Amino acid sequence: MNETINARIRALRDDMRQAGIDATIIPQTDPHQSEYLADHWQVRRWLSGFTGSAGDLVVTLSEAWLWADSRYWLQAAQQLADTPIAVMEEGKENVPTIAAQLTALLPAGATVGIDGMLFGADKVKALQETLAQKGIVLRADYDPVDRLWTDRPALPQDQVFIHDTKYSGESAESKIERVLTDVAAKGANAIFVSDLAEIAWTLNVRSADVECNPVVTSFLYLSPDSKVLFIDPAKVSADVKAKLSEASVEIQGYGAVVESLRSLPTDTKVLVDGGRTAYALLEALGEKAFVAPSPISVFKAVKNAVQLRGVRDAMVRDGVAMVHSLIEIESKVMAGQPLTELGVVDIVDGNRRKDPLFFDLSFDTIAGYGPHGAIVHYGPNTESNADVHSGSLLLIDSGGNYLDGTTDITRTISLGTPSDAQRRDFTLVMKGHIAVATAIFPAGTRGAQLDVLARINLWKEGLSYLHGTGHGVGHFLNVHEGPQSIRLNDTMAPMEPGMITSNEPGLYREGEYGIRCENLVLTVEAFTTDFGRFLKFETLTWCPFDLQLFDTDIMTDAEIDWVNDYHRQVCEHLLPHLDADAQQWLIEKTQPLTR
Amino acid sequence: MNETINARIRALRDDMRQAGIDATIIPQTDPHQSEYLADHWQVRRWLSGFTGSAGDLVVTLSEAWLWADSRYWLQAAQQLADTPIAVMEEGKENVPTIAAQLTALLPAGATVGIDGMLFGADKVKALQETLAQKGIVLRADYDPVDRLWTDRPALPQDQVFIHDTKYSGESAESKIERVLTDVAAKGANAIFVSDLAEIAWTLNVRSADVECNPVVTSFLYLSPDSKVLFIDPAKVSADVKAKLSEASVEIQGYGAVVESLRSLPTDTKVLVDGGRTAYALLEALGEKAFVAPSPISVFKAVKNAVQLRGVRDAMVRDGVAMVHSLIEIESKVMAGQPLTELGVVDIVDGNRRKDPLFFDLSFDTIAGYGPHGAIVHYGPNTESNADVHSGSLLLIDSGGNYLDGTTDITRTISLGTPSDAQRRDFTLVMKGHIAVATAIFPAGTRGAQLDVLARINLWKEGLSYLHGTGHGVGHFLNVHEGPQSIRLNDTMAPMEPGMITSNEPGLYREGEYGIRCENLVLTVEAFTTDFGRFLKFETLTWCPFDLQLFDTDIMTDAEIDWVNDYHRQVCEHLLPHLDADAQQWLIEKTQPLTR
Repeated sequence: MNETINARIRALRDDMRQAGIDATIIPQTDPHQSEYLADHWQVRRWLSGFTGSAGDLVVTLSEAWLWADSRYWLQAAQQLADTPIAVMEEGKENVPTIAAQLTALLPAGATVGIDGMLFGADKVKALQETLAQKGIVLRADYDPVDRLWTDRPALPQDQVFIHDTKYSGESAESKIERVLTDVAAKGANAIFVSDLAEIAWTLNVRSADVECNPVVTSFLYLSPDSKVLFIDPAKVSADVKAKLSEASVEIQGYGAVVESLRSLPTDTKVLVDGGRTAYALLEALGEKAFVAPSPISVFKAVKNAVQLRGVRDAMVRDGVAMVHSLIEIESKVMAGQPLTELGVVDIVDGNRRKDPLFFDLSFDTIAGYGPHGAIVHYGPNTESNADVHSGSLLLIDSGGNYLDGTTDITRTISLGTPSDAQRRDFTLVMKGHIAVATAIFPAGTRGAQLDVLARINLWKEGLSYLHGTGHGVGHFLNVHEGPQSIRLNDTMAPMEPGMITSNEPGLYREGEYGIRCENLVLTVEAFTTDFGRFLKFETLTWCPFDLQLFDTDIMTDAEIDWVNDYHRQVCEHLLPHLDADAQQWLIEKTQPLTR
Repeated sequence: MNETINARIRALRDDMRQAGIDATIIPQTDPHQSEYLADHWQVRRWLSGFTGSAGDLVVTLSEAWLWADSRYWLQAAQQLADTPIAVMEEGKENVPTIAAQLTALLPAGATVGIDGMLFGADKVKALQETLAQKGIVLRADYDPVDRLWTDRPALPQDQVFIHDTKYSGESAESKIERVLTDVAAKGANAIFVSDLAEIAWTLNVRSADVECNPVVTSFLYLSPDSKVLFIDPAKVSADVKAKLSEASVEIQGYGAVVESLRSLPTDTKVLVDGGRTAYALLEALGEKAFVAPSPISVFKAVKNAVQLRGVRDAMVRDGVAMVHSLIEIESKVMAGQPLTELGVVDIVDGNRRKDPLFFDLSFDTIAGYGPHGAIVHYGPNTESNADVHSGSLLLIDSGGNYLDGTTDITRTISLGTPSDAQRRDFTLVMKGHIAVATAIFPAGTRGAQLDVLARINLWKEGLSYLHGTGHGVGHFLNVHEGPQSIRLNDTMAPMEPGMITSNEPGLYREGEYGIRCENLVLTVEAFTTDFGRFLKFETLTWCPFDLQLFDTDIMTDAEIDWVNDYHRQVCEHLLPHLDADAQQWLIEKTQPLTR
């Protein structure tokens, strides 16, 4: 038994007993409903030892479970093996939801305690309703963490800096005006923003608060006559403060937010996103809350011309870094030199870090060799770190946050001669990638409508992958953003020109290898006909796919042409920035496919 | 000005003034939320003169509008041209919803009056909420029709008959037991059914109440100790009554339903479908209503082995009728004999009616020649009736309700030599048809996820169609049924083995011609792999597609193979049932496509 985790869960249960709580939920999020968390908010990781980026922990006085989605089924099983926490494989048939599980196991009159700052308002209301059906009480004021986690890291202390309009392309003043115009049109007279990426975009501010996500820990309130950034004032230099005041934004303490919302005049009608605003904050607003989707979500997703110029440039530099990395990995393996997954990570990260506009990785680099490639969102650590050598497939998923844009690219390469089965699997994945890349669709089409294009060739062979095909990507911001996505479950947001989305079908053979092929695509106008306005995708990412892995026998002529045309463009974009050796390598790696 | 319609609208307004009503909505439905209506319920048609199968009429004291969906934009414009009713082109940008229009135009304090028996409960609640925002009152007890329509047809008087279990494959007792088991599992202790097809399926009863839909005008209440069919007793013979009492079903008058629901014991928990139960009936249930989707919808959609054997047999006979029809049409056109669209309808309907198990058409036959083919859901009448001759495309969409199954097939044929543009358009539509027909997908996949397969080849050419790609089809019941469908907007119902769905992509060039290619497909098991259980479609319809219309230059080998294999199966199924001349014709019409 892992005594550290065991003791922490025991201490939590003691605290629960004292507080009269029968069950608690420790979610993997923060008061901003973030996906990537500052250390201060890594409560679930600290309590359970599970390091996955998603998955809520539920603890009762006698039992404990972690709800892990399909990406993390394997990892959770490994990391929780010797703890008192059982894994709930979310998404599998007969695996109950948290609400269903608690309703089934707790008696009427029991109390579930949660921290209302860590749950979206919509979620709390749904949970409350379900629990109430059995007479179970939900208390949203139970926050035991400070009592248990005595060496809890402080809130992020990093300095805020301004993201120059030469990169962002629009001043904070202009963005605030657009937002308030939209808010007024919807019938509200103010907006309260919890989402850290939305705040960073609106004010053109960034910081290193959260690893890989250059957001600023804060809340934002905007109305025609009052614009307040709730933030630890120690993080804001005089220069930044001066810049913010140009947009009439003043500073108040991060902790002042609840009281400030509570004391707003009663005729204030504050637009808040019900899914992404903490329950406790919505409660503080009370009758003043006007629940509606945030307009900033779409504004942020649609990139302007300056942002696009930046991203296109970043993509070339990112491609050069990838090419240098692939050359280095390949030559080490071919020379029989020792190389591990962490060594691959060092190579890839090192090449990105050389870029003068590099700020941070956009997420922790994934390098999965052989069976590790089949663990979706696997990140090597000192314990798992496998040798990388000739013989299997290596999956590298990585990206950078540059001042002029955010990248996210996955390549799967064969070290040595691939098997026919590997080539077939890779090609089936690429057929899906190409089908998305070449799609043309009427304006108004949602990503979920396009999703099957990436999957149908796999499905016909009895294969599938369970993650999304594509997520929105920020601009020098979070690598995962909404509102658009390409996935199995519908989202109502249509694809709009200017949105950047990943195109990343995959295939994972447990215990053998994993394949994922990812480029970023930009939604652009295609044409307008008698039948309306049509949009299409423009691929932004430049890096060759492994020629050895294509099985042209199962490709159409159009698919072969697409690969050859893509590789021609890769050369066009990258060759001018490579030395002679690297040029030679790239030219060899982009020879046209033939039957 | 059309004086008849004008006078009817004037009389309605007089009645509204007397009743203190500022606006009323006359929906195209009945108390069962039916799509096809008995004459008694054709109120909107009588009031407006518009004959489309969908579209609500809204009348205020000074204005009147008909909301027509894209299928009916042209037809509504034609039929309402000389009436005081304006067409609202539903789905077009900037065309408001009915609720938005009334909210915008009526003053606060105004009263909207509707008949609560003709609106689903969900719809009334949504309407009420929107109107209330502006202080407009919604009254659900305004039913002026009997006062205005003095020669209104009576409620349907047709006799009920039993649909033999040799066709339905399951007794009413067994179905009722399945339904009540599901109802109990959901936490209710009774179910009230308004949907006529659900009632017909559950009790194995049919009648000729509604043209093309062999349903029985009635309501059904089922609980472990009380099973009541609310129906005009004059429609139920002693034999049928005896058969129903075998399943413990007793008869009460159709009009007794409201009072009967109102007087149910207060501890009754009656499952009712909120979308398909009239507001007035839900009000009558009050606290006893347990709103949830009806389990009968899925039960009915999943056909059993006996039903499938019947459908397969009906498909062969229906295919023979289609072949005879196509031969007759073609020979008339080739011989230069006069033929009109109504003549085509007579031929097609006449051939179907010869079948000993034929009961009725499953919908009014569509025969659209040239530009008429571009009017989706066009039905020729004596005024529109066009000559059919050599030179353009003829679109025939037709089907039969046989005792052993329901059919629905669309063929588009070229009379004379098709143009390259026609061949290209037809082939693009067929590529979509084939993509759906050959899809394989994981269990749990929804039709909306597959929809793009039918459209992507059209979209890439800047073409599209706005109707659904597929609808569920009943068994000797309504040709349109849920819960599954294949369409642009998501429906949550997954495709399940045993479901029959249409596969009918199309393309409509206004003023030129229309193309639609429709077969019915059955969802069946494909295989189970490490990645889960997969399903696929089996095509059920047997009738050749017009070989002249294929452009093999834009087809893949797999698509050509599919057409050839399909035509081989058409021959296999139909040749044994044709005479020598027809055999010769079919063999010629199913020659393999070659490049």
